[in-house]
Amino acid sequence: MNFAMVLYIVGWLLEFESALLLLPAIVALVYREPECILAYVITALISFFLGAGLKRFQPKSKDLYMREGFVTVAFGWIFLSLIGALPFVFTRDIPNYIDALFETISGFTTTGASILSDVEHLHRSALFWRSFTHWIGGMGVFVFIMAVLPLMGGSTMNLMRAESTGPSVGKLVPRVRDSAKILYEMYVLITVAAVVTYLLCGMDLYTAMTLTFGTVGTGGFGVLNTSIGSYGAAAQWAITIFMILSGINYSVYFYLLRKQWKDAFSIEEVRVYLFLLVAGTAVITGDIFHLYRNLGESVRHAAFQVASIITTTGFSTTDFDLWPSLSKTILVAMMFIGSCSGSTAGGIKISRIIILVKTINKELSNMIHPRQVQKIRMDGRSVAHDTLRNTNVYMVSYVVILVASILLISLDEYDFTTNFTAVTATLNNIGPGLNLVGPTQNFAIYSPLSKIVLMFDMLAGRLELFPMLILLKPSCWKKY
Amino acid sequence: MNFAMVLYIVGWLLEFESALLLLPAIVALVYREPECILAYVITALISFFLGAGLKRFQPKSKDLYMREGFVTVAFGWIFLSLIGALPFVFTRDIPNYIDALFETISGFTTTGASILSDVEHLHRSALFWRSFTHWIGGMGVFVFIMAVLPLMGGSTMNLMRAESTGPSVGKLVPRVRDSAKILYEMYVLITVAAVVTYLLCGMDLYTAMTLTFGTVGTGGFGVLNTSIGSYGAAAQWAITIFMILSGINYSVYFYLLRKQWKDAFSIEEVRVYLFLLVAGTAVITGDIFHLYRNLGESVRHAAFQVASIITTTGFSTTDFDLWPSLSKTILVAMMFIGSCSGSTAGGIKISRIIILVKTINKELSNMIHPRQVQKIRMDGRSVAHDTLRNTNVYMVSYVVILVASILLISLDEYDFTTNFTAVTATLNNIGPGLNLVGPTQNFAIYSPLSKIVLMFDMLAGRLELFPMLILLKPSCWKKY
Repeated sequence: MNFAMVLYIVGWLLEFESALLLLPAIVALVYREPECILAYVITALISFFLGAGLKRFQPKSKDLYMREGFVTVAFGWIFLSLIGALPFVFTRDIPNYIDALFETISGFTTTGASILSDVEHLHRSALFWRSFTHWIGGMGVFVFIMAVLPLMGGSTMNLMRAESTGPSVGKLVPRVRDSAKILYEMYVLITVAAVVTYLLCGMDLYTAMTLTFGTVGTGGFGVLNTSIGSYGAAAQWAITIFMILSGINYSVYFYLLRKQWKDAFSIEEVRVYLFLLVAGTAVITGDIFHLYRNLGESVRHAAFQVASIITTTGFSTTDFDLWPSLSKTILVAMMFIGSCSGSTAGGIKISRIIILVKTINKELSNMIHPRQVQKIRMDGRSVAHDTLRNTNVYMVSYVVILVASILLISLDEYDFTTNFTAVTATLNNIGPGLNLVGPTQNFAIYSPLSKIVLMFDMLAGRLELFPMLILLKPSCWKKY
Repeated sequence: MNFAMVLYIVGWLLEFESALLLLPAIVALVYREPECILAYVITALISFFLGAGLKRFQPKSKDLYMREGFVTVAFGWIFLSLIGALPFVFTRDIPNYIDALFETISGFTTTGASILSDVEHLHRSALFWRSFTHWIGGMGVFVFIMAVLPLMGGSTMNLMRAESTGPSVGKLVPRVRDSAKILYEMYVLITVAAVVTYLLCGMDLYTAMTLTFGTVGTGGFGVLNTSIGSYGAAAQWAITIFMILSGINYSVYFYLLRKQWKDAFSIEEVRVYLFLLVAGTAVITGDIFHLYRNLGESVRHAAFQVASIITTTGFSTTDFDLWPSLSKTILVAMMFIGSCSGSTAGGIKISRIIILVKTINKELSNMIHPRQVQKIRMDGRSVAHDTLRNTNVYMVSYVVILVASILLISLDEYDFTTNFTAVTATLNNIGPGLNLVGPTQNFAIYSPLSKIVLMFDMLAGRLELFPMLILLKPSCWKKY
């Protein structure tokens, strides 16, 4: 293990975080929260000097194999959160450090699960920082560093692999650094479009910005206790649309910008994604129609919740825990499916589901015609054997983590639905679950041990399991 | 598809069932239930003549490829159940045919899920037939046919593959027919031992026999409304031990009979199985200690329920739905794990779990040392690539069936825990779940559609998914 290199890059990351921490300080300045300004500035200084300290580990070799890539990203996200949680404690917004850490990891991993029962009493700057972590984590911090800093040579691929979503790495152009740049440019573009649209729907700049962070990062932290329920129908539809756009594979936007129309519209995953959105909305609309006054309202709530859950955002316009069982089960199923790979969303990812279904299909065909050689194809290309194996192993690891987590948090003696959906909602980076962790409830009920399990799940979900799992393997820590 | 051969073998099976139906007729004679004698005799005649009719399809070729093997077994089990349900309707024990079919499939698949709220008002002969179906289904009907009838040439392997449990076929000796014989001899031996033991614990012959069928078939139908709760501590311990013995890979007994001690005790799966039993019992004993008067009682209930669930039997001595959340979650996790391959139990099977965990481990090692070539080994041999792939695909198919079933039955609007555990308990051939389908409840609440879904799940669970899934594939029905 090239520890020096790992710490060196984490050092860069912390210096980068110190810069980001100045934004909430400015918000505190604008909203005259003097006690908060200092908290963010002090944290920024801690982050900066810790980063500078770590950067003194001048690595002899800049090699970054897969193992180092995974460990760097896992460590990076953990440190990012450990530091990012400090302001909440300093400002007394969340006095307990474990709770603050839970909230921060939930932010960076774009989960949106909260331990707060009342967000409206928080400082404006705290709510801003809380939502801003969604935006930072959405596209990935290492992707950002790669895009803006002349960090390393050619071995950055393993960082990108660890942080980007989906079964295969979403390189848009041959050079990793250029891909990272293009991704962030598009991310900023969508962010600006969302802010402008929200402003046009009547929100003030502060609300528009914080909700945009929650939307485009598919996070789910809001600034009101009712999540999105208090905003008008136009705003709710606008958020629905930007959630849907954020769950799409960013390759689509890349192709659109390059006017490669055919490429943009032929991605199988995206078509399945749109189909699930429409089908889910249609079924739920029918199922909840009796609860609302009219069709328009039913469609709006159904579409919003379907988009919110499948993109793993976790906003809500209404308490879907009160919906009929069918609707709730569809939402739970969608929690697992998630959105497209190469998006900011969590979950298993639709491309993986497609690969898995095709694998079953191939195996059954193989039983019927044993001598026929078949290949699994997606988007016109045959899927690499490594991707297939990785997808299978991902799925199995996923189930193992899911079951182990449910077992561990059931020590707290809450009911099965609560525990099951708490793990589902954190491992898939959604936010709310059902029952005691439903949309109007929060995660404060859990013991510190359970919170640590759920924090692990949020990180494992965001980093797609392996970077976190590899930390648990002793042989990972041995020298070469 | 060699339809003639499929129907020919199913014909054999139905003639075999007609013989089995004479047993409950004898029970009806003994207990003076004249109205029942006729019901079983008529059903036996229907079964015999239908079987004779099907046997007129003289197949030109006796080839039985994997596809035919799977389809034959799936069809065989479905027909077996369709006929086996008739006596319940004829005797008015279960007047509704869908309910009778549910109960019969639950019997043959050794699930033990019931739609009856009061079993004690049933005829003695009906209760006997209900339990006897467990015994028939436990080791497998085709395995039995293979053992006793000079049915076919060498192509019976694909029948055995479809009906026996676990990721690879448990041939004990080179010839399939000899393996089938040995398996049934051991099965009969354990059955006799259980009956004798139960008699020594003070049960009458009728109770001892019916409960033995439920135990050694890992089924779970009892003859009292309290399941096993009304029997003494000695009887409960005896049943615990025979459930545990029935969850062990039958190869162990084969080795023991041959005095190959080393082979018998070195099977990894069996050691993990025993470890899970002990660990599960220990943790649950601690968790429920406050509910019972003393340690002895706590251990007894814990051991009984752990053995009952991990062997997918489904008997209960107490209402474990009232236990603390941790205990319930451990039981739910054990519902999925199941017992050893090559036993009469259901579930995913411990050998599959071992393979899956080793697969994850190998993949992580591969990330750490990419150039190192590793093989997955079990019991000193490296696991065949086909077995690995099959295990992965099994797992993925399993999750797909699980999710699809939960979605379909949630149309009935019961709570999530009920629906989740109803599917878990049927797909893993256990019997009771939690909440509305808990140990003191039953499956009568569900609509006919949900019952059909759960029947499919029971069959899919018993036949390890693929024989049932293959029926859904159109290309399966094409001619060569």
